[in-house]
Amino acid sequence: VTYCVGLFLRDGLVFLSDTRTNAGVDHIATYNKSFVVEVPGERAMVLMCAGNLATTQAVVNQVIEGGSQAGDGQTLFTVESMVGAAELVGAAVRKVHARDSAAFKSQDISFDASFILGGQIKNRRMRLFQIYSAGNFIEAAIETPFLQLGEHKYGKPILDRALKYDTSLADGVKLALVSMDSTLRSNLSVGLPIDLTTYEKDTQKIAIRRRIAEDDPYFSALRTSWSEALRRALAVAPGPPWDPGVV
Amino acid sequence: VTYCVGLFLRDGLVFLSDTRTNAGVDHIATYNKSFVVEVPGERAMVLMCAGNLATTQAVVNQVIEGGSQAGDGQTLFTVESMVGAAELVGAAVRKVHARDSAAFKSQDISFDASFILGGQIKNRRMRLFQIYSAGNFIEAAIETPFLQLGEHKYGKPILDRALKYDTSLADGVKLALVSMDSTLRSNLSVGLPIDLTTYEKDTQKIAIRRRIAEDDPYFSALRTSWSEALRRALAVAPGPPWDPGVV
Repeated sequence: VTYCVGLFLRDGLVFLSDTRTNAGVDHIATYNKSFVVEVPGERAMVLMCAGNLATTQAVVNQVIEGGSQAGDGQTLFTVESMVGAAELVGAAVRKVHARDSAAFKSQDISFDASFILGGQIKNRRMRLFQIYSAGNFIEAAIETPFLQLGEHKYGKPILDRALKYDTSLADGVKLALVSMDSTLRSNLSVGLPIDLTTYEKDTQKIAIRRRIAEDDPYFSALRTSWSEALRRALAVAPGPPWDPGVV
Repeated sequence: VTYCVGLFLRDGLVFLSDTRTNAGVDHIATYNKSFVVEVPGERAMVLMCAGNLATTQAVVNQVIEGGSQAGDGQTLFTVESMVGAAELVGAAVRKVHARDSAAFKSQDISFDASFILGGQIKNRRMRLFQIYSAGNFIEAAIETPFLQLGEHKYGKPILDRALKYDTSLADGVKLALVSMDSTLRSNLSVGLPIDLTTYEKDTQKIAIRRRIAEDDPYFSALRTSWSEALRRALAVAPGPPWDPGVV
């Protein structure tokens, strides 16, 4: 299982993905699930993926490297807009579906691939999209400033409660990491290390690109701080005005 | 959709269930999903249910009222142990399945019913069980002091992080309500009012039985306090040691 989250903030974008790939509990591997497309100063994008690994790798290859199935030869390095980039990913998913779906169906394998794509091309708006396995897509918005892939439920409440469009990039990083931590704790098939990428608006350059492992001092400090803060929150929260132990 | 949570604590039990029943978004009703069986001083139990409403009502009727299909005439008022009570619920689920499954299958309706049953009979241990739709069941334990039914993922992280077997009943009530609040915020098909029941160990009497609606002053104060505490937790959590906006 995968967990990826993308934040669409006033000051920029935050991307966070886990690296666990598994085909059964006895077949586990570590794969990067977030890919950077960057021409510094001209364009910067991040593509994160969830689903069948062969399918997502085929899509990533097509949209980043081009290749025989890419049709008109466009890649994320050549598209003229972020909408064009999302359309390119959607078209690549449909091509892979056309190629694989009959074989999948004959073996009862479900076609499963979804993507978060965000970034900015010079003189254009910064945007964040989620592309579904059917190739269609939706966009994050000021009222809905985050998108998630995969095992999304455990990490959603903290984002629902605390994340706003005008949250700072640093607080966005904190919230994305706390959301990931909640997911890691609740679902063993989402696993460390995790990949964090940040982008500041109107720079067309990736700001931070870090792989965070078990021993990362910042992630450890954040986890400890958050657990202590929750214990304090429980302590200061008002108790019930009736005694729950009195009959 | 339903969300029910049962806590198994050193000092007693906490039960919390929502009341939303829906067959599509345009067919919504409010139903009690937690049922009390009590002979004060002799036995006290709470049964919570999730799944197909006709199925769960049939099971509840059988185990509380008895009835033609109940076989040897046992009910939750007559069983001699909590394990016997869990077995009775499991047997009732299997009877309803035997009665309905052919018709369900012919109409592509899935058989879906699960239960949390907890309580204590005099001179016996306090116990908390989860009964599956196949009629088999598991028990909460000191290391795993809560059980959930239905839409369980949104409300699980806070319990994973903060609930322990030796959490007090009052803190257990707080945590169950925060867990429910997270679920209510993230899934519209889980809805207020909610039903809270608490039991103190070795009393064989229900302590608190409250229906909590939108305007409940305690629940409102708890929600406000929790949201403020999370904002403070975010403020005091360490920021990343690298500037996420600097290229």
